[in-house]
Amino acid sequence: MSNYSAIVEYDGTCYKGFQAQPGNVSTVQGELLKALNIVLSGAEIQEFSYAGRTDSGVHAKHQVINFKTCKKLDLYRFKWKLNCVLPDDIVIKEINTAAGDFDSRKDATLRQYSYYLVNNNYQSAFLKRYSMLFTGALDIGLMRKAADKFCGVKDFASFCNNSSNVTFTVREVYSFNIRKYSGGMFVFIIAANAYLYNMVRIIVGTVIEIGMGKRSIESIDKAFEARKRTYAGKIVPAKGLFLTNVVY
Amino acid sequence: MSNYSAIVEYDGTCYKGFQAQPGNVSTVQGELLKALNIVLSGAEIQEFSYAGRTDSGVHAKHQVINFKTCKKLDLYRFKWKLNCVLPDDIVIKEINTAAGDFDSRKDATLRQYSYYLVNNNYQSAFLKRYSMLFTGALDIGLMRKAADKFCGVKDFASFCNNSSNVTFTVREVYSFNIRKYSGGMFVFIIAANAYLYNMVRIIVGTVIEIGMGKRSIESIDKAFEARKRTYAGKIVPAKGLFLTNVVY
Repeated sequence: MSNYSAIVEYDGTCYKGFQAQPGNVSTVQGELLKALNIVLSGAEIQEFSYAGRTDSGVHAKHQVINFKTCKKLDLYRFKWKLNCVLPDDIVIKEINTAAGDFDSRKDATLRQYSYYLVNNNYQSAFLKRYSMLFTGALDIGLMRKAADKFCGVKDFASFCNNSSNVTFTVREVYSFNIRKYSGGMFVFIIAANAYLYNMVRIIVGTVIEIGMGKRSIESIDKAFEARKRTYAGKIVPAKGLFLTNVVY
Repeated sequence: MSNYSAIVEYDGTCYKGFQAQPGNVSTVQGELLKALNIVLSGAEIQEFSYAGRTDSGVHAKHQVINFKTCKKLDLYRFKWKLNCVLPDDIVIKEINTAAGDFDSRKDATLRQYSYYLVNNNYQSAFLKRYSMLFTGALDIGLMRKAADKFCGVKDFASFCNNSSNVTFTVREVYSFNIRKYSGGMFVFIIAANAYLYNMVRIIVGTVIEIGMGKRSIESIDKAFEARKRTYAGKIVPAKGLFLTNVVY
């Protein structure tokens, strides 16, 4: 068995998230497995793993997967064939042989997500699928102060979807930066060891409410203490979120 | 009658070009007129004009249109309503009152087009609709030398589609630059007073053949002399082409 790792890019608009699901549900993992089965001519695929379980409608510029197979592969041709077979919105950027014990999920030490917001009075035809539109005023200084509050080892129980069954809600946020570009583009870049369900989108929604002046920076401390979803801000739409890096 | 000008952005993938056509043909102009009719509640629209007649599948970051109507408009609300009514792939970026005699087509002195090429062994999921993929080696130095050959007042008869019925084939190219970005992205940026049918795509195709080493720089001089389409290079796909600026 050889272990292969790949960097995958996808437009998540048409998928119910990365993770394969039972039934006739369109997922990125489902499409990857279908394509691998075709190109490997049915040779067995074992231990398929991935770094980030992106939600329905979330995109990736840099998702990392790995899988094992007995088949010996010419990597350049294999990548080319996979890209021919995959749907237009999923692309293999790189494929490499990995150490036998490499696991793209367990071995990842940092996952970076970027959230795109357009602060303007119209939404670009080209960015509509990939960003949220916000027409009001945003105070970037306040938002940056708010962002600092999320850094460190913290209990993010208030900043995740209630339906999540996870009981251990402590995560470590390494950094959280907000960049502003021309055309009113804001990018919220967060790096952490791991995330809770909807965590990035709820954190970004909370920070935006602070930038609007609708919420105080101190409300973040209260939300951390309360461990209740209602203390945090509204969730922002999935379409603005990208998995942008994974570090090992 | 008041004269209004607007800057329009569109993803041309699903349209048979900008210009309205008889029958049930999907065009950008057709969609704009439909939206204007709805928002102006059927008030008469006169002298609708536009700066660049982009071909089927060609996009625009900056198309300029103008039209006259008797209706007095609150421009901010008017733009907002138009963007609600327009399909997702067409957006009004700006709308302004214009001088009574302003004509977005006749008054334009410079039209800039940009062609996007990805030089890599895969095509990004996000850029696939907006660029051509080229996997071979390209010599940017040679391509830049070739680009210079197209600048000035020249007869572009060899660099246009034969089916074009235009007899006056002299145009002035003001500048033609080639930029290279990370990820193998090349952008060919051409500015001219006006263009012949398919002219930008045939010029870019010719320059790429020079970058590949398939064609000599001198072959451009020969093509200009011959005034025959067969002397120029292959046309590149429409999807990489954007109308990116219009100057008055």
